[in-house]
Amino acid sequence: MKTTVFVKAGQVAVQEVEKPQLLEADDAIIRVVRTCVCGSDLWGYRGDDDKAEGSQNSGHEIIGVIEEVGPEVTTFKKGDFVIAPFTHGCGHCPACLAGFEGGCQGHDRSTNFSSGYQAEYVRYAHANWSLVRIPGQPSDYSEGMLASLLALADVMPTGYHAARVANVQKGDTVAVVGDGAVGLCAVISAKLRGAKRIIIMSRHEDRQKLALEFGATDVVPERGQEGIDKVLELTNGAGVDAALECVGTQLSTEMALKIARPGAAIGRVGVPHTHDINLSDYFFQNAIIAGGPASVTTYDKEVLLKAVLDGQINPGKVFTQTYSLDAIDQAYKDMQDRKTIKAMVTL
Amino acid sequence: MKTTVFVKAGQVAVQEVEKPQLLEADDAIIRVVRTCVCGSDLWGYRGDDDKAEGSQNSGHEIIGVIEEVGPEVTTFKKGDFVIAPFTHGCGHCPACLAGFEGGCQGHDRSTNFSSGYQAEYVRYAHANWSLVRIPGQPSDYSEGMLASLLALADVMPTGYHAARVANVQKGDTVAVVGDGAVGLCAVISAKLRGAKRIIIMSRHEDRQKLALEFGATDVVPERGQEGIDKVLELTNGAGVDAALECVGTQLSTEMALKIARPGAAIGRVGVPHTHDINLSDYFFQNAIIAGGPASVTTYDKEVLLKAVLDGQINPGKVFTQTYSLDAIDQAYKDMQDRKTIKAMVTL
Repeated sequence: MKTTVFVKAGQVAVQEVEKPQLLEADDAIIRVVRTCVCGSDLWGYRGDDDKAEGSQNSGHEIIGVIEEVGPEVTTFKKGDFVIAPFTHGCGHCPACLAGFEGGCQGHDRSTNFSSGYQAEYVRYAHANWSLVRIPGQPSDYSEGMLASLLALADVMPTGYHAARVANVQKGDTVAVVGDGAVGLCAVISAKLRGAKRIIIMSRHEDRQKLALEFGATDVVPERGQEGIDKVLELTNGAGVDAALECVGTQLSTEMALKIARPGAAIGRVGVPHTHDINLSDYFFQNAIIAGGPASVTTYDKEVLLKAVLDGQINPGKVFTQTYSLDAIDQAYKDMQDRKTIKAMVTL
Repeated sequence: MKTTVFVKAGQVAVQEVEKPQLLEADDAIIRVVRTCVCGSDLWGYRGDDDKAEGSQNSGHEIIGVIEEVGPEVTTFKKGDFVIAPFTHGCGHCPACLAGFEGGCQGHDRSTNFSSGYQAEYVRYAHANWSLVRIPGQPSDYSEGMLASLLALADVMPTGYHAARVANVQKGDTVAVVGDGAVGLCAVISAKLRGAKRIIIMSRHEDRQKLALEFGATDVVPERGQEGIDKVLELTNGAGVDAALECVGTQLSTEMALKIARPGAAIGRVGVPHTHDINLSDYFFQNAIIAGGPASVTTYDKEVLLKAVLDGQINPGKVFTQTYSLDAIDQAYKDMQDRKTIKAMVTL
């Protein structure tokens, strides 16, 4: 089968490898129907993460059809159409029960995150609780709906996670820092949770437009101190009730902290590349700093799959270009160059 | 009148000064009935805060009787017996409305915190919403009840703040890091909010005993990695649902973060003297870091005053020694040397 390998900084390629086999009793083998490139994959692609040349590539977002399950998988069978969350929670440890399966304590962390999923087939560990069944088969859905279902493997639940951990409530004023696919999904999430005012911090016209379509009420293109000042001005000096940090840099994290009113939470979901946030600086504003890997299974089952199937939300719109698996390097390049918000791969 | 001045590191003294006057229209002048020494006062006393010799001393916890109010104070009158919270919220800005009056946006931060309150009289700024009325007069209450009412000026609401921002829920397993007066009040708070298991991290027998009386179920005397291991062992490796950080040092903050299960919150209320917490380190555990100055008025009015008056909680027990104002330096010394958990001053 075909899979994606990391060649060197700025280049991935498709290679023929053995099709994955069941290794553990709770594994499932999934035939991939759609996969895509994540903003977090770009850190490695750019060479920022010291990835070894020729190593397995990242990639962790798929929808697909189950080919085979291990003997301990009782909740899924061959032929089921599923969302494969990038986390693999057991569903019954204290972390999973609290709705934080990104920190599942039922098995080793090394098997709790997907990788190497830009491929024709994948081995999905701990399938029983973690996979999410989609009614019917891929052929029952439009291209647009498949895109929205694919978004449920990571980017949409990750945006939702920012809103949940920042405790976005009905009537709130929310700012979203970052206009990537996750930021745009955070806009959807803030609206879904009833936010009255949603400020998107975005410098790119295509993303601003989509943010407004998704429910943003204000656009702030300024960054750094200018951006902070603008948000404070928009909120009569008060700051926002919740700041959704969807980038992960030092600058974006500080911005999120500085536009938050006292007692407001920062929901951070961008994989952090920060170093110098001094917690003491934010004590007197009672800042709440929350976030981490999203609870994909929990949110899909509780809220998001239904919202997608009902047409209430349409996160698939973040996929603005589609590629074949053979063109995966172009998919990365176009995302890197902001020619597409998020790149979908059709198999 | 008599007030306390900072002489030099390790010494405070009583001095005669002018009685304070009304300066602003929403001021109140309060005759102090009880005051006390806060753990945070000790940072200055020890010389850790670079305090200038001869400067006004800290001190911010009193109960007392109103002598005089400014023309804009409509909610209190001469003769009212009150708790004077160390914060001075306006009650109607976004921060106060969200229950975070420690970050009141209705006036300048410089007038939002009390200081110099180890004195016979104090000027209390922004009295209208912030003060909390106690029914009757001081003479209506026992010494023990006066002590518990005094605890409502800071230490008890501060412990409660840790539990609130760490979102302690019915049935939770909670750890309290720090066995000072605030830590002990955090134990009371965790119990009040329905925690099932409360682990106090304490090395001092008198404090362990009081913690158990207040509702702690387990005592962990170990610190650092040993303490972390012990708490993890007590929770079958899972970690606690909430960690209440009541010290403010680097070590205590790291301990709190490391004993928390994925998705658990750290409620930090010790004035932070931390430097090197790297937020990236706690991303994958979905750590929630919350806390800051407590919402004294909010908690007293909503929960704590009634709980004290009903005898449901008895936070005054943290005052294990009582001093005259003339003996204030001894009160500091005894707290510093852990001869008393918290030192009360009777006027």
